[in-house]
Amino acid sequence: MNNLKQINPETSGHIRECLLELSSEAKELYLNNEVPVLDHIPTPLEFYRDWVAPNKPVIFCGAVKHWPAVRKWSIDYLRERVGSKNVSVAVTPNGYADAPNSGYFVMPEERTMTFSSFLDIMEAPSSQPGVFYVQKQNSNFTEEFSELLCDAAVDVPWFSEALGKAPDTVNFWMGDERAVTSMHKDHYENIYCVVAGHKDFILLPPTDAPWVPYANLPPATYKEVTPGNFEIQKAEGSDVPWICIDPIKPNLELYPQYKHASPVRCRVSAGDALYLPSLWFHHVQQSHGCLAVNFWYDMDYDIKYSYYTFLQNLTWQMKPS
Amino acid sequence: MNNLKQINPETSGHIRECLLELSSEAKELYLNNEVPVLDHIPTPLEFYRDWVAPNKPVIFCGAVKHWPAVRKWSIDYLRERVGSKNVSVAVTPNGYADAPNSGYFVMPEERTMTFSSFLDIMEAPSSQPGVFYVQKQNSNFTEEFSELLCDAAVDVPWFSEALGKAPDTVNFWMGDERAVTSMHKDHYENIYCVVAGHKDFILLPPTDAPWVPYANLPPATYKEVTPGNFEIQKAEGSDVPWICIDPIKPNLELYPQYKHASPVRCRVSAGDALYLPSLWFHHVQQSHGCLAVNFWYDMDYDIKYSYYTFLQNLTWQMKPS
Repeated sequence: MNNLKQINPETSGHIRECLLELSSEAKELYLNNEVPVLDHIPTPLEFYRDWVAPNKPVIFCGAVKHWPAVRKWSIDYLRERVGSKNVSVAVTPNGYADAPNSGYFVMPEERTMTFSSFLDIMEAPSSQPGVFYVQKQNSNFTEEFSELLCDAAVDVPWFSEALGKAPDTVNFWMGDERAVTSMHKDHYENIYCVVAGHKDFILLPPTDAPWVPYANLPPATYKEVTPGNFEIQKAEGSDVPWICIDPIKPNLELYPQYKHASPVRCRVSAGDALYLPSLWFHHVQQSHGCLAVNFWYDMDYDIKYSYYTFLQNLTWQMKPS
Repeated sequence: MNNLKQINPETSGHIRECLLELSSEAKELYLNNEVPVLDHIPTPLEFYRDWVAPNKPVIFCGAVKHWPAVRKWSIDYLRERVGSKNVSVAVTPNGYADAPNSGYFVMPEERTMTFSSFLDIMEAPSSQPGVFYVQKQNSNFTEEFSELLCDAAVDVPWFSEALGKAPDTVNFWMGDERAVTSMHKDHYENIYCVVAGHKDFILLPPTDAPWVPYANLPPATYKEVTPGNFEIQKAEGSDVPWICIDPIKPNLELYPQYKHASPVRCRVSAGDALYLPSLWFHHVQQSHGCLAVNFWYDMDYDIKYSYYTFLQNLTWQMKPS
């Protein structure tokens, strides 16, 4: 665990009891065992009051089914519209970009290629070693794929109205079914819209933070040194605090505290949108070639955030990011 | 402190540091040094997003100045309209109803009298021993003063629309300038509307809870045994956990932790309304004969409540109510 010192759950009786009560009470009081699915869009006030303020995830079925993208974004169409553009693609040997491996926090090899070449690989994944994923979270939808904007939207209007602001970042996602987004949390309110295929999420509420183990890992990147042969190469920069448990196959011997966490799974299908509240831990997988656009809105640093930071400080001597 | 065990701030280094950081960070991040005063009513969505969700008090200047009550509620008018009605009046020797005294939690003597007799006492306070206050918080406005409803309102429409519900309780307040509401908190969202005179509030945010000392006190009531002679008489029932510090003259030798709290003072004048968020500690004083109506709306037991309960559990072995 390096210089992250987690309070030992076995020796700190009173704190531990209070932490257990916090996560169990949160579940009883206001959390759902499953992510609720609504088949209508509420008013901005209802949405804010029922979901954003209480920090609860919800799926809006059919929320973006009116986007032309949902019927138009075939591989042929994308090739025709943006095939000649150079785009950033994350390449890994195993699908895990930005994830712990061999004691490092390993980032993907970033390659620039035409979108057409990327689509070729999507159509024939075994033609190339490695797992390819368009996942650059720098507003790549508006920056790199502006030709596709008219098929989707620059924001989700009722979400913007509820939050009283425009999105900070709009990201475009397309990738291999082996590509995984390892568990982490974001300081954003997130509306995640699926255009084709589906995304599978594993979610954990912020109140489960005490049971989520972090490690402080030196940064590294994958590099394909010879065809099909990826090395982990140390990178510049200070250690990265990252979640060191895989919710797909949690190692409870190493991290017994994780048994107190209550992961919730949900699938978001084409035309649907997931409201993923700020500070929720999430792990994401997808169907092959799944297309999605997500909108990040700045979160409010309010009383919920203060309480969360308190919870985190109490559990850790050094704060994970 | 009886069987309430507060964690000793001097011996629990890590918890204490985290608690200090919580209240100071809350102040830096989102709290105001003064209660903001707005001269317009926001939309229900703006009100919910900017004040209710982040649990921040605010004064709406002129929010109820259109109520006929603001110009009509003179003593003569009240006598004419409701003078013959029997009403519940809280009587104490010192103005402190529901407050610690001599090791007890002392409730007022409850007297039933005509409102006209009460108004006589308001006009000549020295004519009677004791301090008189109409303060029964059982929706007495709609129950006991229904003749006055048409001068005010059964709810605050934009507040009801924002919260998506009707008020649970509507209370009418009128009393002596010596009457004090001792510091406490309510499990309600509160919109406090002043019709005549002014109310002076001392407020503390929920994140200051660790610095607010409670005592567990046996219940008692005042009883005027001979004219002007009030006794404290033990009452039935189990001990009442109540705040044992007076924010007007805090005893910092006995409760040194209170120095970390950041009380905020505000005055609410005739025609104005204070949004007093759930779980905020408050102490209230008033001008003589001040008239007010407040609306309690059920609070949401959401993530903020879970965090608050956690904070309370962590600081206390036995929960104050």
